[in-house]
Amino acid sequence: MASVYATESAAAQRIRAAAIASFAEFGYAGTSTRQITARLGMSAAAMYPHFRSKEELLYSIALEGHRAVNDAIRAADEPTAPYSDRLRSVVAAFAEWQARHHQLAKVVQYEMRALRPEHFRAIAELRHQTTAMLTTIIAAGVQAGEFLADDADDVILAISSLCVDVCRWFPSRTHRDPVQLGVAYARMAARMVQADETSDHRSRPGNGV
Amino acid sequence: MASVYATESAAAQRIRAAAIASFAEFGYAGTSTRQITARLGMSAAAMYPHFRSKEELLYSIALEGHRAVNDAIRAADEPTAPYSDRLRSVVAAFAEWQARHHQLAKVVQYEMRALRPEHFRAIAELRHQTTAMLTTIIAAGVQAGEFLADDADDVILAISSLCVDVCRWFPSRTHRDPVQLGVAYARMAARMVQADETSDHRSRPGNGV
Repeated sequence: MASVYATESAAAQRIRAAAIASFAEFGYAGTSTRQITARLGMSAAAMYPHFRSKEELLYSIALEGHRAVNDAIRAADEPTAPYSDRLRSVVAAFAEWQARHHQLAKVVQYEMRALRPEHFRAIAELRHQTTAMLTTIIAAGVQAGEFLADDADDVILAISSLCVDVCRWFPSRTHRDPVQLGVAYARMAARMVQADETSDHRSRPGNGV
Repeated sequence: MASVYATESAAAQRIRAAAIASFAEFGYAGTSTRQITARLGMSAAAMYPHFRSKEELLYSIALEGHRAVNDAIRAADEPTAPYSDRLRSVVAAFAEWQARHHQLAKVVQYEMRALRPEHFRAIAELRHQTTAMLTTIIAAGVQAGEFLADDADDVILAISSLCVDVCRWFPSRTHRDPVQLGVAYARMAARMVQADETSDHRSRPGNGV
């Protein structure tokens, strides 16, 4: 994936990529800045012009990851489509992103507690945007009678959780293709709001439901 | 939770509990045996009669966690009940366990790569048993026409993944009660195999489905 920081130097991008690989493998606490720069044949001091600390590096990675997820989801949404199509597209994009960028996603999902409070708050705001996109579609779909969900908050939580967990196990023996995984997860999400069911019923008027 | 090792000394249990807390907070790679024993006011050498290495300690925790999950799921299953009831009970127990023991679960789910190959294989066998219980119920339910799932493997993956991810985020603002969470997740799982739907249809004969 290209960096979201267009103005970033090539060195900063290499440091970030090495940090993602190390944090994903050993965890944030289990990685020193020295280990990261050693991977690149740099001295530890060579990092500081780009990132002032290991925490700054994590924050930069967290920003990149969360912005990229939000961009992918936003690009997948077609606000004029039926709600069930919108839900499927957005869930497919979300799951596919987690699969395609599973190392970055792992850092983004599992290491947030290591951020300083003001950085944590900035990232929490970006995470909120992801949930808000799902919430908007599901709430509107329920309102319009396209979805059945008297427990919309639980459904939103479960769909987000399902997509996020992809980065823990992807790839597996049964799933190695991010696109196919996205399609499969979109189908699950539609079932969670009983979207298939509802549209089946709508296409068969008079069945009493 | 009581240790699954009935014969284990009180010291070994305290070491294990301290290790779970440290591994959950800092990761396996980010925790030294010295840090674990320091939490307990012990010397680092005091650990070795109980666990020969940090890896042995992780393996012991992984065994405890995986056996406890499997016991919880097995205890929840009622093999003579309808498949949709069995699925709900098992999923509720699985999600509830991940919530109730989220620190232990986090270590069990995120640190497995640090195990030696023979230990990893032993744990993989226990993980396989968890999946096998879900698989048995879902396959039989599909066979009996209680569940609709032409993509049973994806459904099994998604239900497992949903339950496992609980340990990443629990507790949250909306979910602080493991039992209620279990009930909510059981409902999602039933929707994923369209169990509600199917049973509704069965109770209304003649609707053409």
